[in-house]
Formats: sequence, structure tokens, C-alpha cells
Amino acid sequence: MQIHVIHGPNLNLLGIREQGIYGALTLDQINAQVSSLGKELGVECSFLQSNLEGELVDTIHAARNHADGLLINPGGYTHTSVAIRDALLGVSIPTVEVHLSNTYARESFRHKSLIADIVVGRIVGFGPLSYTLGLRALADALDVEPSKR
Amino acid sequence: MQIHVIHGPNLNLLGIREQGIYGALTLDQINAQVSSLGKELGVECSFLQSNLEGELVDTIHAARNHADGLLINPGGYTHTSVAIRDALLGVSIPTVEVHLSNTYARESFRHKSLIADIVVGRIVGFGPLSYTLGLRALADALDVEPSKR
Amino acid sequence: MQIHVIHGPNLNLLGIREQGIYGALTLDQINAQVSSLGKELGVECSFLQSNLEGELVDTIHAARNHADGLLINPGGYTHTSVAIRDALLGVSIPTVEVHLSNTYARESFRHKSLIADIVVGRIVGFGPLSYTLGLRALADALDVEPSKR
Amino acid sequence: MQIHVIHGPNLNLLGIREQGIYGALTLDQINAQVSSLGKELGVECSFLQSNLEGELVDTIHAARNHADGLLINPGGYTHTSVAIRDALLGVSIPTVEVHLSNTYARESFRHKSLIADIVVGRIVGFGPLSYTLGLRALADALDVEPSKR
Amino acid sequence: MQIHVIHGPNLNLLGIREQGIYGALTLDQINAQVSSLGKELGVECSFLQSNLEGELVDTIHAARNHADGLLINPGGYTHTSVAIRDALLGVSIPTVEVHLSNTYARESFRHKSLIADIVVGRIVGFGPLSYTLGLRALADALDVEPSKR
Amino acid sequence: MQIHVIHGPNLNLLGIREQGIYGALTLDQINAQVSSLGKELGVECSFLQSNLEGELVDTIHAARNHADGLLINPGGYTHTSVAIRDALLGVSIPTVEVHLSNTYARESFRHKSLIADIVVGRIVGFGPLSYTLGLRALADALDVEPSKR
Amino acid sequence: MQIHVIHGPNLNLLGIREQGIYGALTLDQINAQVSSLGKELGVECSFLQSNLEGELVDTIHAARNHADGLLINPGGYTHTSVAIRDALLGVSIPTVEVHLSNTYARESFRHKSLIADIVVGRIVGFGPLSYTLGLRALADALDVEPSKR
Amino acid sequence: MQIHVIHGPNLNLLGIREQGIYGALTLDQINAQVSSLGKELGVECSFLQSNLEGELVDTIHAARNHADGLLINPGGYTHTSVAIRDALLGVSIPTVEVHLSNTYARESFRHKSLIADIVVGRIVGFGPLSYTLGLRALADALDVEPSKR
Amino acid sequence: MQIHVIHGPNLNLLGIREQGIYGALTLDQINAQVSSLGKELGVECSFLQSNLEGELVDTIHAARNHADGLLINPGGYTHTSVAIRDALLGVSIPTVEVHLSNTYARESFRHKSLIADIVVGRIVGFGPLSYTLGLRALADALDVEPSKR
Amino acid sequence: MQIHVIHGPNLNLLGIREQGIYGALTLDQINAQVSSLGKELGVECSFLQSNLEGELVDTIHAARNHADGLLINPGGYTHTSVAIRDALLGVSIPTVEVHLSNTYARESFRHKSLIADIVVGRIVGFGPLSYTLGLRALADALDVEPSKR
Amino acid sequence: MQIHVIHGPNLNLLGIREQGIYGALTLDQINAQVSSLGKELGVECSFLQSNLEGELVDTIHAARNHADGLLINPGGYTHTSVAIRDALLGVSIPTVEVHLSNTYARESFRHKSLIADIVVGRIVGFGPLSYTLGLRALADALDVEPSKR
Amino acid sequence: MQIHVIHGPNLNLLGIREQGIYGALTLDQINAQVSSLGKELGVECSFLQSNLEGELVDTIHAARNHADGLLINPGGYTHTSVAIRDALLGVSIPTVEVHLSNTYARESFRHKSLIADIVVGRIVGFGPLSYTLGLRALADALDVEPSKR
Repeated sequence: MQIHVIHGPNLNLLGIREQGIYGALTLDQINAQVSSLGKELGVECSFLQSNLEGELVDTIHAARNHADGLLINPGGYTHTSVAIRDALLGVSIPTVEVHLSNTYARESFRHKSLIADIVVGRIVGFGPLSYTLGLRALADALDVEPSKR
Repeated sequence: MQIHVIHGPNLNLLGIREQGIYGALTLDQINAQVSSLGKELGVECSFLQSNLEGELVDTIHAARNHADGLLINPGGYTHTSVAIRDALLGVSIPTVEVHLSNTYARESFRHKSLIADIVVGRIVGFGPLSYTLGLRALADALDVEPSKR
Repeated sequence: MQIHVIHGPNLNLLGIREQGIYGALTLDQINAQVSSLGKELGVECSFLQSNLEGELVDTIHAARNHADGLLINPGGYTHTSVAIRDALLGVSIPTVEVHLSNTYARESFRHKSLIADIVVGRIVGFGPLSYTLGLRALADALDVEPSKR
Repeated sequence: MQIHVIHGPNLNLLGIREQGIYGALTLDQINAQVSSLGKELGVECSFLQSNLEGELVDTIHAARNHADGLLINPGGYTHTSVAIRDALLGVSIPTVEVHLSNTYARESFRHKSLIADIVVGRIVGFGPLSYTLGLRALADALDVEPSKR
Repeated sequence: MQIHVIHGPNLNLLGIREQGIYGALTLDQINAQVSSLGKELGVECSFLQSNLEGELVDTIHAARNHADGLLINPGGYTHTSVAIRDALLGVSIPTVEVHLSNTYARESFRHKSLIADIVVGRIVGFGPLSYTLGLRALADALDVEPSKR
Repeated sequence: MQIHVIHGPNLNLLGIREQGIYGALTLDQINAQVSSLGKELGVECSFLQSNLEGELVDTIHAARNHADGLLINPGGYTHTSVAIRDALLGVSIPTVEVHLSNTYARESFRHKSLIADIVVGRIVGFGPLSYTLGLRALADALDVEPSKR
Repeated sequence: MQIHVIHGPNLNLLGIREQGIYGALTLDQINAQVSSLGKELGVECSFLQSNLEGELVDTIHAARNHADGLLINPGGYTHTSVAIRDALLGVSIPTVEVHLSNTYARESFRHKSLIADIVVGRIVGFGPLSYTLGLRALADALDVEPSKR
Repeated sequence: MQIHVIHGPNLNLLGIREQGIYGALTLDQINAQVSSLGKELGVECSFLQSNLEGELVDTIHAARNHADGLLINPGGYTHTSVAIRDALLGVSIPTVEVHLSNTYARESFRHKSLIADIVVGRIVGFGPLSYTLGLRALADALDVEPSKR
Repeated sequence: MQIHVIHGPNLNLLGIREQGIYGALTLDQINAQVSSLGKELGVECSFLQSNLEGELVDTIHAARNHADGLLINPGGYTHTSVAIRDALLGVSIPTVEVHLSNTYARESFRHKSLIADIVVGRIVGFGPLSYTLGLRALADALDVEPSKR
Repeated sequence: MQIHVIHGPNLNLLGIREQGIYGALTLDQINAQVSSLGKELGVECSFLQSNLEGELVDTIHAARNHADGLLINPGGYTHTSVAIRDALLGVSIPTVEVHLSNTYARESFRHKSLIADIVVGRIVGFGPLSYTLGLRALADALDVEPSKR
Repeated sequence: MQIHVIHGPNLNLLGIREQGIYGALTLDQINAQVSSLGKELGVECSFLQSNLEGELVDTIHAARNHADGLLINPGGYTHTSVAIRDALLGVSIPTVEVHLSNTYARESFRHKSLIADIVVGRIVGFGPLSYTLGLRALADALDVEPSKR
Repeated sequence: MQIHVIHGPNLNLLGIREQGIYGALTLDQINAQVSSLGKELGVECSFLQSNLEGELVDTIHAARNHADGLLINPGGYTHTSVAIRDALLGVSIPTVEVHLSNTYARESFRHKSLIADIVVGRIVGFGPLSYTLGLRALADALDVEPSKR
């Protein structure tokens, strides 16, 4: 069971940028937490971060060959990218959408997600925990053995 | 550590109504799963379901005396109840909002939650698992000992 | 063949309140007219009026056990209640929506009905006659013997 | 007592076009049902169908000389014709609006009727029965002897 | 110098319909007033009334062969007809738009005219006088000898 | 002269909830202030608080039998309740609307009141004083002897 | 019979400013034309131009004492001034609104007039002729002897 | 303790203009009532009325030197003047906004006040009483000895 | 294989009207080009132009008896006619929509087509070539032998 | 005569992704069809596909040096990219926009194209044929010898 | 070379009012800085501040006789004054618009400027420096010798 | 003191593309002007232009290590990029936004900037001078020695 974790633009700044909103962990530390829980649940995790919309499209395409599920935080592209939506529609891999901050308590343009209606579900606002909760939800959607969730 | 779990209107029909959308578990079965995970995490859970907006307001008020956190699925009132929003603002207890179905894949009036910006975070679309993921998120927000999450 | 007739908020004031808009018959007199036509058509009618949104939800839930069709005038909740919509979706009983006054000739917020798209049809503006026309339409939708309609 | 029944554009295709939405009866068969009920209620019915907006305006004008009430299904002109609205305002004959399909369960531009606020009332969604129910409502509005309704 | 006067739908009812709004003169009486002033100003007037949108388009087309200016009251089509707009754009004859009633004191959908930006000017709300004022304005736009206006 | 004072949802939390917004007085203390001023003005006051929309509708209905005026703070239902609006329309008792906080300095959904256009007037933003000012305004509207206001 | 002619902001620049839009006549020349036609129709005309919204309000107030009708071109205040609207409502003198340019062929914010629904009628787009046509319309509304119009 | 009372455009017409909406008292009579109550409460009142937006801005500026509170009815400028809003923000004097008529029962453009969110509170719809209630509210906000309110 | 080509209002003016926008060919010349290509592709073409909305509806209805495909340029009715939309839905014949000018580079009300979502596809902006390209597309949709397209 | 064909994001998945919407041909097969028709028409075609918005901008810039016309399917960037619009405006090369699916029969955010008003024309909904029709249209716009089109 | 600097309402309060937003310099100090830079650039500056919209219109008119360029901060009238827009259009003098605060970081009604599209350019948010930068920009637009800018 | 100057998409075409809008200078010439003024002011400037949204995000991130201020012209991404907004929020470096053309005199989608509320200020419409004015503004915000500005 393989899960590909995709981080969108600006998430490479985690632990540095606006700690009041996004928390103090770096992206590597979050990835380590996800990997560790993945082992516990019996799923293997791979990771990609990019600031380029097109690279995110590329990594979603490539996931067709190696991933059973996608865990994605599209960052700022959540609200504007039809291309990422189309890529997810194109590969048809079960996807869970996560966000570190509560986007509903921020600017109104962050309240709209262009992928919300095509993912399995969404987890919003729990900081790095959003990722590990998202991994549990994705494992469940992929029918990983329940005792492990 | 006490957590009060609140179910809004129509959720008493779970397991009966529109199984394609909401799944086959009854509300009691979901509550049992939440209780069980609560024990594992070291938190105690109480439950209430009501179809009356005012009773939901009452139970939120009463929670000031016995609960450290709220796990709420306001059902249809999610989209219309200023009174529930005011009750949550009034008691100031950390709250996590959960939904069984992916509200973003349904009618557009379900895309708006009147409490989204005042909760810690939101979990949407994972069926009964939304509740247990929500409990984990709430325990984290209440600083339950991390090793237990 | 059982039909449950549901009256929403303020309809208990019929015959008293704003007679220019709603007419001079009381609710009991309307119910008697409906019962009488019901006998003629070979269907039995039961009735409930409530000003509480939650009680209307409850009576819709309960109708699963005793009614083949619903004739509903949701009054002011027509325009705001997602909970009643969800209840009707949950029980899946054929429903006809009726209104005494022509809601389209009144304030603009009365032009929107949250259940319009999920009922069999709608009858609007004919005073108490709206109910008896609605009963005929419901009997037709339930395939009561045509000669009786 | 004379009633003029007016059918707007495309209704000449009834029984042929999109039977899933509009049913299998032809327009002649519907007219026959209306005539028959008219006799029972003691009112005489005349009929006109046209695909031309201006002819519908003309027939409404002409009705001033021979009709006590109008039963109209303006078809697609329901949503766009200010001219038909003005014609109805001009002749001031009591009018009931009917629709075969539940327009509220179809495209959003069908939710708006330009005559809704100037008719006695509206009957929507019951197939051919909408016409006979409309005739009953119109007879009632014209004070045909109640025992006959 | 030839001027073609075009009356849209329902204006054949003038003097009959809603006299409170439109006044007591019939269309023939208005046309006579216009003709009479036309003689005084040295312009010849022809007239057409139709309830059919397409006939109004046709008469505008035909005007290319005989008219130097158009005086038009498009009635209800004012607010909905792109076809009439296109016809006026197509023939490029100077046009003045007139209305009997003050459309801005009526329903909001009457506030929008689809030809307002392509006419020389507009005269709204003066009853039959709107036509004779419009004729003066049109004569001026066509450079009829000033002493005659 | 009888005045009925109606408090909507969450106002039972006064003195406890969000003191920065609503002040430190409890509901009982406010009621006592209103009663005291009532005596001074020669009017008698009764009180009801409820978190249930339907109970507020009921108390408005019942007021027909015992009250000459209504002083209402509908709380969160201000912005959503058509049923309360209908109840006020139904009983036709002069009503003054009051709010503790300045609703215009808060979230935008609090800027809309569904009863604003049917009350005598509105008093917004003066804390508990809003109630006593409202009582004076209501006494004035009911023509209580001017010297007493 | 006295008529007061009111010119709003920037109209003092006439004959200088944007001749392509407003024509080559100065304000004095236009006033002379209006006076001259006034004499012919048997009405006396007075004039005021101001760039200050409040002065326009003042002159409307003062008109109560000396004018039977108002001819107003509110210029840029047409689209923004509630105060001028209120002044016209306050004095209740029959008013005709005129504009030199076709406001509907310019920026969209010029399509809205805050006084359109409270004037007798409107004349838009005929350059200085708009004023003399407006004077004729006003004389007619004031029942000046018809033979003179 | 000094309070400056500011009346916006058209209020000089009080007692003359539209008595059905604004009542029969003149502005001087209202000012006398305010002064009289002011003496009772131990505050001194000064007054200004102007139809010019800029003069209202000037008087607000000048108030910094002599007033502890402002009681303002901006009339038609309520809905359009950013300059008055800025002036109030600039001087930072506690302000109460009053209106004679219930603006919410009139045209929709009167429902928006540009100063609603920066005043202490608002009193709307009680005729001249709005001013004396406003004075009481302002005195309270300025901590005038409670026994006097 | 029969194809019916339908031209909406004002297209009879082609070659005369606004050549900068629509080109110099007359309608007959365009029809000749279409016929000629039709022969090459092995399909037979018939033609109709009308300025009347109802006649366009009629010709669509009649096409059920003789046409396998429709090539339609609804002209100004593109943006307003629900009746034409309904006619196309009623006959269920594969249809291609064409426009001579690029409607997206013109007034905003021309950007909306009421039939765009129910046709096979759309060709916009290539002058008379839009028709011949549309014929090729229609032949393809009707499975005319590929080598001929 | 050189034509550059540009494919936007996700089009590399053609023949794999959502065949019900986009058809079974791969991008290479479509390019081959375009090349082949190009030879027939006497134009040479080059191709580029990219998922990166900036690379699409780059290829448009570069086209200034080698292409006489552009045939572009911007995929998901159609609806969101001002940068691509600016690039097309910058290079001023005649461009035809094509889409495989009928974007008007899909989600509403696909109805808006940011380049629609600056291209020669648009071809929408004919699958791979959209490209070859687009090539014919572009050849025509570039005045390739007519006999070859 | 003469430049006229125009300050709108409330700017006379500079250095006093809301220093956090507008800075500590008084208007005279800003004018001195502008004059000083003007000398350096070889342009002469005159100044006017007014709280009256009409006086601002007047000073713009008068500028035709003495100024080559305008530097304007319309303050609160930026967002509401069509009259100032018309005055600027009328005199056709090159104009630069400046603002002290970043209006885009404040209330949404401050985001719209009614003169933005008719000025040479805009400088927003740099406090008093906005004026001197604006002077440089204006000098450049007036072709003052480049070495001096 | 280091300043990083960032040019968004299509700005590499400067001096070539649409000279009427953007002027005749190339990007290198503009950069040279900025560098030269930088030396005069005692700040050092670095430059980057990219057509890729993600590269602009990257260069903003990297600026944390070497720049004290940012001067950015985001080109077409101004109106659509949440990712660039987030990057600027993430690095918290004082930023000035500049545009060559007056975006308010162009298409309406260019009136909205997604970074306008988070920059120090904005300079719009002065061609290449926008950059040097922006540099002066940025130096001022960074407290470069005043005598040098």
C-alpha cells in the first residue's frame, strides 16, 4: 500500500513563516511524523513539495504508476487551480485534502477549494496533526486493515 | 478530561436514512466507537442528539459545567443557525466540527457553515470515522498526553 | 392508504391572523374539508400542526411507520429549514407542498422554497382550496383508483 | 361561465417530446380531459396553442370578449416574456398558471416566472393533472357554485 | 423627410388597458397627434403596431428603404429583445426611444432597456406627449429646419 | 397598560458570556431595571426568555390576550427567523426591537434583521440601557401619558 | 406660472468642456433658449447653477415659495445624491429630469438615477434640446393651456 | 458636559415636509425638547443644521474643541458620505446616530448606514423621540451620573 | 443524410448590415457555400431564415420529419430564447451552433448562449467559414464517412 | 506558413484520462492528424505540451520568431490565466482557441475563458476534430490559398 | 510650469487625527515639503484644502486658468463623487491621484476610486511621501526636464 | 541595504510588446535606471524576471537571506496568485507593488490585486518611472537616510 504526500507552494517555509498560523514544525519533521504513522498503519509514504503549479500536476500524473492514495495540501493553489483539479480527475486516485490552518477563519478567498467536491474528505485547521489525521482517513478509505487505524 | 459529543437534527435516523450517503452504522454504534477511542486516549465522552435547535443551544450552555471540549455535528443547522454559533461563542469551549458526508459534493447551500470560523478545525466526509478523527483532533487541542493520540 | 397532513408555524392562527391574506376558515375547518374529500377518494388523513421546527422533523420521521404520502405546508420554515428538507429526504415518502397565499406576490424571501425540488409538485395561492387540490394531486401520485380523483 | 385555456411554445409536441419529463398524453387528450371536467363543473372551455409570443399576446387580448378566466401554461415564455405579463395586466382576467413538470427540479432559469406574482395561484409538477387541478382552482376563484367543485 | 413610428406589444390596447398608467387616448388618436405635428415640422410619418417581436424586426429592416428616422416604443420587448437591438444596429437609422409611463417608477425589470445606448436619446413618462416630444427630438437630430421645431 | 418583554436565544447567559460585548448584568438584573422603569411610566411588564424559536412564536401568539406592546430582542433569530416575523405580523401588536451590542460593528450576517421593517423602531448598541430606552419608546408609541416618559 | 431651472455640478463649463459629448452652447445660451420658449408657452423661468450638493438642496427648498414646477439636470449628483432626492420628496413640486448626453451610452454608473422614480418623466440625450423639450413636458404636466405647447 | 446635536440635509423642512413620515414638529421644537431634557440630565446642548456635506464635516471637526459627545442625524448623507465617516473617525468623540423614520421600512438604499459600525449605538424610527432617547443613551455612554438618566 | 440550416433574426441583412462585424457575403452566398460543401461530404442541405422566434421553433419541430442534423445560428435569440432551447430539447436532433462574429469580443449580454450546453459543440467568430466548419463538425457527429470530412 | 500548436495542462493524459469526456485518441495521434491536414493545406505545424503556466507563456513568446499563427487549447488555464492572455496580447499572432469537450455542458467555472475576446474565434466540443477544424479556420484567417481549405 | 495641489475632506486634521494611519505631519508641513521639491524640479505649486465637494469642483474648474497639472487626494470623496470625476474630465488637465494610507488595507468601500481610470497614475500608501512621489510623477508626465526628476 | 526587484510574466517582452501601453524601454534599460538611482540612494539592487509563478515564489523565499526590501511587479499574476501572496506573507519583507500601465483604465479583472492589502503601498501607471518612484518609496520605508531620497 503506497501513499504519495503532496505539499503545495510556500509549505517549504514551514517552521519559519508565520508560526502563529502554521506552527513551529518544519516540513521534514511533519514528513517524519507521517512516515512513522504510515509504518504503524502498514502503508509506505513518499513525499513531494513544489512551488510550481505544473510540477504538482506532473507529480499527480506520475502517481498513477506508484500510489494507491494521495494526501494533498495544495496551499495557495487550493483556491485557484483548475489544472490541479483536472489532474486529480484524470488519475482517479482516492485523495484526502488537508490544511494546517483553519482556512475559514482567514480571508474569504480561502474559503473556496476547487477540489473539495472531488476528494474523499477534508481535514482543516489542526496544524501538523491534519496530516496524520488525513493519513488515517486515507488508510480507512483504502480499506487498510481496520485494527491498524 | 471530559468531552461532550453533540449530534444535530436527523442524525437519529443514521443507519436507516439514505445509507448511500451516510453509511450503515446507527448513532449508538458510532457513539460506542467514540467512547472506546476516548478510553484509549484517556478522555471521557458524553452524548446528546436532538432535532430541536433550542435543545442544542441548551446542551452547549450546560456543557460549561462538565465539558472540556465539544465534538459537534450540527447537521442541517450547520448552514442556518446563528443561535448555535452564539451559544458556542458564549461558552468558549474548544470545539471540533465534523460531518459524515462530504458536504462540498452536495447542494451548494451545504457549502456554508456558520461555525466554521470559530471552531478549532473541521473534519468532513469520512463517514463515522469523521467522529473518531475529530476526537483525536480535540484531544490534541486539549493537550492530552501526546503518546496517547 | 394513509396520508399525513402537516401544518407549520403560525397556521394555528388561521381564521384569526391577517384574514385578508389567509382567509376566514380556521385550521380545524380546513382539516375537516380535507378529511371529507379524503373519504370520497378512499384515503385516510391524519393531521399535525406545530410551531417547532424540531417537532415537524419528528413528525416526518414518525410518518415512516404510518403514512403513504405527506401533504405539507411548512409555513415560514419553507424558506429557511434545511432540517425539514433533510427529514423529507430521509424518509422518502411522496410529498406535495401547499401554500394558502400566493407567496410570489409577497416579500422576496418567500419566493424561495427549500423543498421545492424534492416534492412531487406544488400548489400555491388558492387559500384552503390549496389543501384539497393538493390531496387530489397526492392521491394521483399514489395511484389511488383514478375514477375516484 | 367561459374559460380560455392557453398553451405556449412546444406544447404541441406533447406525447412525443421527452416523455420522461412531460408524460405520454397528447395535447388533444389533455384538452379533452379539461373539457370533460369543465362540463362537470358547469364551465365551458376553449383552447389555443401557439409557438409565437405575439399570438399568445393576441389571444389574451381577444379573451376580454369571451372569457371569464384564463388557464395558462406559457412554456418557455414563462421565464422571459414581459409582453405576456403586460397582456395579462392589460386584460385583468383572473388567471391560473400551470406547469406539467416540476420546474424547480430543473435548470435554475426555470425557477423564475414573470407572471407568478399577478396570477391567482400556481400549480406545478403534476403532469396533465396540473391542468384539471388548475381548472378546479379557477372555477373556485370565479365563484362557480361550490357544490360543483 | 420620412419618419417611421413603431409601437410594440400591447400598445393596441391603449385607451382600454390600465388607464391609470397609460392614459385615455387610443393608439389611433396618438398617431393622429404625431401626424399633425409632423406636418407642422415638415416631416411625413408612417406607423406600425405589432405584438410579434419578429414583425418589429421586419419593419425596422424595411425602414431602410423609406425612412430617415425611427420613433420607437418597444413596449415589453424593450427589456428583453436582443433581436430588435440587432435590427436597429443593422439599419443604422437615427432612432428616438419613447415610453408612455415612467418605467423607473414601476417594477425593476423595466429599468433596463436593451436599446438605450444605441439610440439618439430617450423620452420617458409623459404619456402621449412622449411621442410628440420624441418627434421634435428626432426632427432636430435629422437637421430639419430649426425654425420649425 | 401591559408590555411583554421577550428575550431570544443565549440571553440567559448574560453576565456570564462575552462580557466585553454584552456587559456584566444578568438577565434578571436587566428585567428588574425594566420593571422599575415600567412602574415609573405606569406600565406593567412581563418577561420570557427562550432558546427555542417555536416557544418565542408561542409567546408572541399568547401576547394577543394580555399585552399592549412587545419589547423584543430576538438574539440570533433576528437574522434567520421568518416564523417570528410571521408571528409578529399575525398578532399586530406594536413592537420595539432592541439589541445589546452594536450589531453593525460585528459579523456581516448580523447586519440584517428580518423584523426591522415591521417594528415601530429599533434601538441598537447601548447594552442594558437599550431595554429601558426601548421601553420609553414603546410607551410613547402606545400613547402613555407624555409627562411620564 | 413659474418654473425654476436647476443645473448641477460642472454645467457651468458648458461650451468649454468635452464639446463632443455636451455640445458647443454655453449655459447662458441654453438658459436664453429656455426663457424664450417659456415666454411662448406663457411660463416664467428662473435659473440656478451650483457645484455644491447642499446649495442644490437649498434652492429646491426655496422653490416652495416661488415655483410651480422644476426642471432639473442634477449632473454628477444624479447618481449619488440621496439628499437631492429627499429635497424633491420634501417639496412635492412636479419635476422633470433632463440630461444633455445619453447617459446610457457612457459609464455604467451613469445608468442609475436616484430621482428617476419620483419625477414626472425624463428626457435624455438630445443636447440643449433636452431642456426645451423638458420645458414643454413640464408645461403639459402643469396643465398650461394645450394650444401653447 | 457638552453635547453637540447635528442635523443633516432636508431636516430644516421638518414639520412641513412629508408629515406622514417625519411627524409634525419643526426642527426648533425638537431642539427645544432636547435642550430641556439636557438640562434635566445635567448636560448642555448646542445645535447645527446644514444641507452641505462639507459643513457637516466642518462642524464635526470644530466639535473637538467644545463637545464631549455628538448626537447626529445625517439624513440623506447617512447612506453616501465617506467624508462624514472619516470626520467622526478623526475626532474620536462618542457619537449616537438617530433617525426619525424607520429607514428599514423604506427604499433599500436607506438600509445601509456608513457610520453604523463606528457609533456607540443607533436609534431608528421613533420620530422626535429618537432624539431624546439618543440624548439619554449618549449621557449614559459619557457616564453622566446614573440617577439623572 | 439531410441537414437543416437555420438562420435567426437579422441574418437576412447579411452583406448589407455592419460589414465590419459580419463580412460582405450575403445570406444566399453563404447558403451556396454550405450546399456546395454538403455535396462534397455527401449530405443534402435545406435552409430557413426567420425573424420570428415562433417560426424558428416551428422549423425545429418540423425538422423531426426530414433532418438528421441541425446547423443553427440563432442570432439575437441565442441569448434570450428558452423556447428555442425547449424546441431543441424536444426534437433531440444533433445540433451544431455557429456564430459569424466573435460574440465574446462584443457586449457582455452576448457572452451567454441559452443553448450552449445542449448542442454537440460551438463554432464562433470565423465569419461565413463558421458555417462550413460547422457542417464538417455536424457531418462528423452524424458519422458521415470519415474520408469525406 | 508556420503554425504552432499549444496544448495546456493534463492534455498529456489524453487517451488515458476520462475517455467519456475527452475521447480515446492520444495526444500524439491528434498531433499526427493535425500535421497531416497541415500538409494538405500547405502549412507546417510544430507542437508543445506543458503542464506549467510559465512554459506556455514562454512558448508563446518564442513563437514570435517562427510562427504565423497559434492553435491553442489552454486546458485548465483557460479559466484562470491572465499571464497567458497577456502573452497572447504581447506577441499579436493570430490565434484560434479549441477545446475537446463542450465546456458549457460542464462545471460553471469552465464557462469563462480569459482569452475568448482576443482570439480570432473559438471551436468547442468536437473532440479531436476541434483541432483540425481549428487548423482550417486558422489557415483561412492567415489567407492560405482558399482552394486548399 | 504650475501645479495645483488639492486636498479633500478631513485632511485639515492631519497630524491630529488617527496618527497611526495618517502619520504625524500637519498639512502645512506636507505642503512645505511639496513646495520645496517643486522648486528643486522647477515647478511652482499652489494649494487648496476643502471639506466641501462643490469647492473641490470649483478649484478644479479654476485650475484651467493657471495650472498645467493637478495633484489630488480626494479623501473620502474618492469613493463617492461623480461630480469631481466630471470636473476632471471637463478641464482635461493631467492629474495624479495620491493617498496617504494604503486604502486597500482598509474597509472595502475604500477600494473603489471613481477617478482611477482617468488619471495618469496613482500613488497609494506611503504617507506624506505619496505627495512628493506624486509630484515627481506629475513633473515627468508634463515633460519637465528629466535631469531634474 | 539590499533591494530585490522582481518582474512577473511577460515583462521580458518590454520594449517589444504593445508599446502604446507599456512604453519603449526594454527590461534591461529599466533595470539600469533602477540600479543607477539605487546607487544614488545608497542601496544595492538585484533583479529577477520569470514567467513561472513558482519561480516567483522561490525568489521571494530566497530573498529572506539577502534582501531588506522587495520591489515587485507581478504582471498578470497580480490578479490571480494566492501563492505569491502567501510567499510575501511568509517572508515578511517590506514590499512595494508597481505597475507600468494604469490597470484601472483597462479590463475590469485588472482592477483587483491580491497583494494590495499586504504591501507598504502601490504605484500604478507611470511607465518605467513607476519603478524608480517605487524604489524611492521603498528606501523611505526602510529608513534609508532621508537626505538621500
